Amino acid sequence: MRGTLLYGPGDIRVEERPDPKIEQPTDAVIRLVATCVCGSDLWPYRGADKVEQPMPMGHEYAGVVEEVGSEVSAIRPGQFVVGSFFASDNTCEICRAGYQSSCVHREPVGAIGTQAQYARIPLADGTLVATPETPSDDLVPSLLAASDVLGTGWFAAVAAEAGPGKTVAVVGDGAVGLLGVLAARQLGAERIVIFSRHESRQQLAREYGATDIVVERGDEGVARIEDLTNGLGAHSVIEAVGTQESMMQAIRATRPGGHVGYVGVSHDVALPGEELFFSHVHLHGGPAPVRRFLPELIDLICRREIDPGKVFDLDLPLQQAAEGYRAMDERRAIKTLLRP
Amino acid sequence: MRGTLLYGPGDIRVEERPDPKIEQPTDAVIRLVATCVCGSDLWPYRGADKVEQPMPMGHEYAGVVEEVGSEVSAIRPGQFVVGSFFASDNTCEICRAGYQSSCVHREPVGAIGTQAQYARIPLADGTLVATPETPSDDLVPSLLAASDVLGTGWFAAVAAEAGPGKTVAVVGDGAVGLLGVLAARQLGAERIVIFSRHESRQQLAREYGATDIVVERGDEGVARIEDLTNGLGAHSVIEAVGTQESMMQAIRATRPGGHVGYVGVSHDVALPGEELFFSHVHLHGGPAPVRRFLPELIDLICRREIDPGKVFDLDLPLQQAAEGYRAMDERRAIKTLLRP
Repeated sequence: MRGTLLYGPGDIRVEERPDPKIEQPTDAVIRLVATCVCGSDLWPYRGADKVEQPMPMGHEYAGVVEEVGSEVSAIRPGQFVVGSFFASDNTCEICRAGYQSSCVHREPVGAIGTQAQYARIPLADGTLVATPETPSDDLVPSLLAASDVLGTGWFAAVAAEAGPGKTVAVVGDGAVGLLGVLAARQLGAERIVIFSRHESRQQLAREYGATDIVVERGDEGVARIEDLTNGLGAHSVIEAVGTQESMMQAIRATRPGGHVGYVGVSHDVALPGEELFFSHVHLHGGPAPVRRFLPELIDLICRREIDPGKVFDLDLPLQQAAEGYRAMDERRAIKTLLRP
Repeated sequence: MRGTLLYGPGDIRVEERPDPKIEQPTDAVIRLVATCVCGSDLWPYRGADKVEQPMPMGHEYAGVVEEVGSEVSAIRPGQFVVGSFFASDNTCEICRAGYQSSCVHREPVGAIGTQAQYARIPLADGTLVATPETPSDDLVPSLLAASDVLGTGWFAAVAAEAGPGKTVAVVGDGAVGLLGVLAARQLGAERIVIFSRHESRQQLAREYGATDIVVERGDEGVARIEDLTNGLGAHSVIEAVGTQESMMQAIRATRPGGHVGYVGVSHDVALPGEELFFSHVHLHGGPAPVRRFLPELIDLICRREIDPGKVFDLDLPLQQAAEGYRAMDERRAIKTLLRP
């Protein structure tokens, strides 16, 4: 089969790779209908994470089950399925508490690489969620979004306790930030402010429910949030970047007693204890337990109540994955969908 | 009147100071029946915080109202009252959300200094809570504890979401940690583990409801918590120290999805973003909004359902404040009560 490999900074290739097989009785093999490039894929692409050997890429996936192992009972060949970037048993105490991305048996799907024609998915019963029927083609991008960016934006909004009567601020206007806006709206937030300087992203943010756009960043951006909230700060702040600057901006934009939901993969961040202490914020986040939300998200998508697939503004054959990465790296695209 | 001043590291003196007066129409002046030395007073006493000029000390207080300003309506002379270390209006949006220690009009009572015979308390109506009747003498230590250490331990337990079915771990065996144990028990926690190496503190922890004592610290202490929780970590961890080591111990002892309630005043702490991200914990804390809990705590004390005053294991006349500090600094005393 064809699959994507990262050879080094900026060096993405699509090559022949071994066809995946059932290795464990709990595995499934799926044929990818759609996959995509994640903002977090740009970290190793840009050289921030070291690449020792050609690395299979991709951890987002929607597709059709080809084959299942002997112990798989809930998932059947022929079903259209979506899963998260962490395989999980969905039965352990941590999963039952809603933290499937910290499942005691979790396996990172990214190590397998889903920017490919086929993928082996471990712990299929706990990981995969089937759609009620085979979805029409136009729903595929949204279902793919549920696999990571929607689930992650949703978790951030839940962690930030977005809800009725709340002012929510969103740091980061990538796909996760934009879908954080969508999630905050679905959760009933009264006012949703996004920090963004990019016109196309501002426009999509408004479509998803943003009520205010702030172009300033850092302390100036925080001051604008204070202007909008009687000097108090937002009730809920979604952090979807992962840098020191974005984390501090999120914490400082939150009122005392408010909630920061942070999902940007943390890179070189050190939070000053004293400032955090006196900020009085709640801080929660990490790798989104997308599996917790998948049934609800798939339902919203299949009922066409939400359209998260709009974050894909570039749609390419898998063969052109390198261009898909370049476009995101250069911020010409919010998110690239790849068709195997 | 007599009052306590810190002249420099280790140099506590009780001297003649001006009698406090009503300065704002919202002030009250109280006669202290009891005051005490806080673990956080030891930071400047030990030289960790700079002392530029003789500094009035003390922010915990229980006493009788002597006089009130013209705009005070809820509090009357003659009432026995308890207040928190932050004066608060108790009417602003932040107070109404339960974060009185971040009140938009907050004033630190520590700047006034309550290790004295009298004290001016700003925003009396919002800050002070009167007992139903003049309490008997034996209740005074417990009511004084409500002013800070009990309220702080209680907030930590609430922030850590201690409750039925939960395993709670407590980092720090000072008065706040011990009263965190008491709070966790009152909130219905199933199992309460305290890190402690001091026999007298272990004993009081057991009286307050601790089910397990762990003498190991750092990563070894974390490993012991994992042993007690099927390798998962505690649901709820109370942090009552404020150092890098204690914060990391608290975060690492918490299971994914669990809650850290941190109330130790943060000193030279920098939380590593990546570890925090993958820990999946909820982090919440800061200066305890004691005012939120005071009515409930006073009620529990007056009904003799809890006895937080036991943390005072040294009871001295105010005149001997210096010895009270020394005993706590040398860990000969958990907490010193001072009688003006």
